[in-house]
Amino acid sequence: MLLSLDGRGPLYRQVIRAIRCGIREGWLAPGTRVPGSRDLAADLRVSRNVVLLAFEQLKAEGYLEGRPGSGTYVCQSLPDTRLETPPADLPAAGRVRRQAALSSVGRRALQQFQSAMKPVRCHHRWQYDFSYGLSLPDEITAHYWRRTGPAMRSSDYDYGDAAGYAPLREAIAGLVRRHRGIATDASRVLVTSGSQQALDLTARVLIDAGDKVVMEQPHYQGARTLFLAAGADLIQCPVDEQGLQTERLPDDPGIRLAYLTPSHQFPTGAVMPYRRRLQLLRWAAAQNVYLLEDDYDSEFRYDCRPLEALAALDRSEQVIYCGTFAKSLFPSLRIGYLVLPDHLLDAFRAAKWLADRGNNQLHQKRLAQFIETGDYQRHLRRRARCYLRQRQALVDALAGVFGDRVRILGAEAGVHLVAVFPDLDEATLRRWIDRATHYSVGVYTLADYYHRAAPTQPGLLLGYANLSERRIRAGIQRLARALNDVQAAAA
Amino acid sequence: MLLSLDGRGPLYRQVIRAIRCGIREGWLAPGTRVPGSRDLAADLRVSRNVVLLAFEQLKAEGYLEGRPGSGTYVCQSLPDTRLETPPADLPAAGRVRRQAALSSVGRRALQQFQSAMKPVRCHHRWQYDFSYGLSLPDEITAHYWRRTGPAMRSSDYDYGDAAGYAPLREAIAGLVRRHRGIATDASRVLVTSGSQQALDLTARVLIDAGDKVVMEQPHYQGARTLFLAAGADLIQCPVDEQGLQTERLPDDPGIRLAYLTPSHQFPTGAVMPYRRRLQLLRWAAAQNVYLLEDDYDSEFRYDCRPLEALAALDRSEQVIYCGTFAKSLFPSLRIGYLVLPDHLLDAFRAAKWLADRGNNQLHQKRLAQFIETGDYQRHLRRRARCYLRQRQALVDALAGVFGDRVRILGAEAGVHLVAVFPDLDEATLRRWIDRATHYSVGVYTLADYYHRAAPTQPGLLLGYANLSERRIRAGIQRLARALNDVQAAAA
Repeated sequence: MLLSLDGRGPLYRQVIRAIRCGIREGWLAPGTRVPGSRDLAADLRVSRNVVLLAFEQLKAEGYLEGRPGSGTYVCQSLPDTRLETPPADLPAAGRVRRQAALSSVGRRALQQFQSAMKPVRCHHRWQYDFSYGLSLPDEITAHYWRRTGPAMRSSDYDYGDAAGYAPLREAIAGLVRRHRGIATDASRVLVTSGSQQALDLTARVLIDAGDKVVMEQPHYQGARTLFLAAGADLIQCPVDEQGLQTERLPDDPGIRLAYLTPSHQFPTGAVMPYRRRLQLLRWAAAQNVYLLEDDYDSEFRYDCRPLEALAALDRSEQVIYCGTFAKSLFPSLRIGYLVLPDHLLDAFRAAKWLADRGNNQLHQKRLAQFIETGDYQRHLRRRARCYLRQRQALVDALAGVFGDRVRILGAEAGVHLVAVFPDLDEATLRRWIDRATHYSVGVYTLADYYHRAAPTQPGLLLGYANLSERRIRAGIQRLARALNDVQAAAA
Repeated sequence: MLLSLDGRGPLYRQVIRAIRCGIREGWLAPGTRVPGSRDLAADLRVSRNVVLLAFEQLKAEGYLEGRPGSGTYVCQSLPDTRLETPPADLPAAGRVRRQAALSSVGRRALQQFQSAMKPVRCHHRWQYDFSYGLSLPDEITAHYWRRTGPAMRSSDYDYGDAAGYAPLREAIAGLVRRHRGIATDASRVLVTSGSQQALDLTARVLIDAGDKVVMEQPHYQGARTLFLAAGADLIQCPVDEQGLQTERLPDDPGIRLAYLTPSHQFPTGAVMPYRRRLQLLRWAAAQNVYLLEDDYDSEFRYDCRPLEALAALDRSEQVIYCGTFAKSLFPSLRIGYLVLPDHLLDAFRAAKWLADRGNNQLHQKRLAQFIETGDYQRHLRRRARCYLRQRQALVDALAGVFGDRVRILGAEAGVHLVAVFPDLDEATLRRWIDRATHYSVGVYTLADYYHRAAPTQPGLLLGYANLSERRIRAGIQRLARALNDVQAAAA
């Protein structure tokens, strides 16, 4: 409390004047809770009775009000509405609405944020929300993240290595060795605040404004906004059923980086075959380009054994590998990781150190133990069993309801698929999406994942991680009704 | 696991070939733990007996070894040392040591990191370590951070508002209103990953390479490295017993930002008087400069009531206020905050969204409840009582041992003070610091907090948050012996 007593007259009157002054000056705002009488007495070094006496008086005057069982509050409507009067010698009286004077990065960041799809979902807005990217932990996993945490050593409370908590780096190295075939130890692993920070650090360490960055078309829009904010010049390279069309990669010495999702192309879900992976690596070696491999949902595969990561095939230290626990555990965990070529380690560690000094160690320790004990693998197996059923329900429902009108892409892995409707145009698709909300169904157009070009086919991106089989079936039924409405209105 | 069976011959032989292949190709590295037989059997869709049979055979061949009670591991020394043979058509055989091709930010970040004092402390390296910045929670607070966390709603697991979890922003707004006199509501609060990210976001949003930034001399070196990495041109402004010498602030239209610690100057501990604060605000208004107020340890004050924050006096929306829980709770918590002028909110939220999408919500919820329940205030009062005694022990020990030779600065607040030794030169001081390590005492020179200029007086920065009174007294006794050694050797 900033309250201070002026030393004039009885103590309780001094306390009254101090509180009134706080209210008038605005930092004890209407509706806020006033500290308890014990706390206030300790702060002001007066007896509690003095404070209680002052409270009584201020309640009588209409400044404070007691709420039973909850404490004492500043009244919403105050007896005197005299405005805050700033000292006469302050530079400007009243609030000035300034124009923000931003850096070039600040201006671009603001522009991207304002034009981007926002990350905040409206929970329970729609009964059947096929939005992508929300995975919730089941009860067993949720319990792990709430229950009593591991014992802490004093160094766990201190700043740690900016590259991450050593046991977590070990655990992650073990995961990518076993599951993605990448021959790495913990030294090449850097823990980040989600894959978003992994991408951001890459942009900061490697990209100057004006540098060229190759992206898949369509692509993950979160990467696009980031590279545009960094001032990169984006070059789009098209995608087909086998992922990025590597034979169409440009020959341009100005290219610094290519951002790729070879294992499960986002959003189309295409898996890049071995031949194209080698072509990509050869191109990168010839052009001296870094490849940023975003392996965002490699944990869930249904019909096929996983191909090795691009980073597992890399023999010339060009691949920067990025993974995340946001899809396999839950988004707000905010832990992702990079596996880096040796020669980039120091620069990335430096950038992480400058950005935030490293992730919270309590949390890293909890995650490390979750992996070490095998709980994480068990979690993945439980989730994969659910997702497999949900995916099947979605594929069956789409085929049953739309028959030959729908073509399903990217259902082999991950927690979303793409449903292409070749006989619709984009305008009709958007009317359909709009109409679907009347049936409490949320669906999203594929077109949002393209940059400056229309998609070749109108399609929907359908996430299913967070919907039961029953809801999936009912949601697709309602979606069909919405399409009927739209087409009836057009006829 | 990436193991896949080739379908030839008996199942257990297929498993053996698959594991041998994994070992040879390097992703089952020597010394790593192999998944348990149950897990592996589930992954490969074979019976557990098949896997156990394969393990027995591989142990017999010297590929695997069992460790009782711990599982099965790849042997450290393997029977065949055939090197990993990459596919013949890969671009480069063998590892290539590449030169890192970094962006200008990447190059500057690396340079700053390599030249900076590193944040990783050697715990228990010295018995009497007066290093600054390590605060440990007491048992009550440590227990809070380990115990079962608050109940979570599904939206708590999802991405949240990049600006922070609403109840935590409310709680922080309440703290800065009550304790720092800043008339704000939650809308102007942005939660960051420690004050480091608060500074980093400020640099990104406001500073272009070549922009001028005013800093105190001496100053917090963490801010210096950050602004230098951003490419800023630093202007040093000297500090005296009243903090920044505001009459020496330069008149230069190229200045974009001034970084300041008015409430407890870092490292000298000077408190800036009201008159200078107004002078600073007038200068900022005239020059159109943003003021970044780092209020890093405002929670602990001993002899004086706190002055209001600079942000509380700001009437022209020029002050960006930055606070942290790293000092009041513990560093690895990694939660700090900004209180921003309205017109900068969107740009900062955009930068945070691009940087990492926002902090972990479980953790934010835990901190919000810690504040709301009053536990945080009780924690601060317990800590302040300890720190007050520790400070007194340090001041008394210094005066008792060094008498008139020492001048103590900045002891009114915070968890460190500065001891100036006017009769020593910097070279002697450094020999002393070096000699002190023989007595297991860690002390640090004030000179490291100056940029490109020697301090006017040789001094030590002494942190006391993490030392008992007994240790403080013993440490200062030993420090005196080290000085005797150095001066005896010189005589």
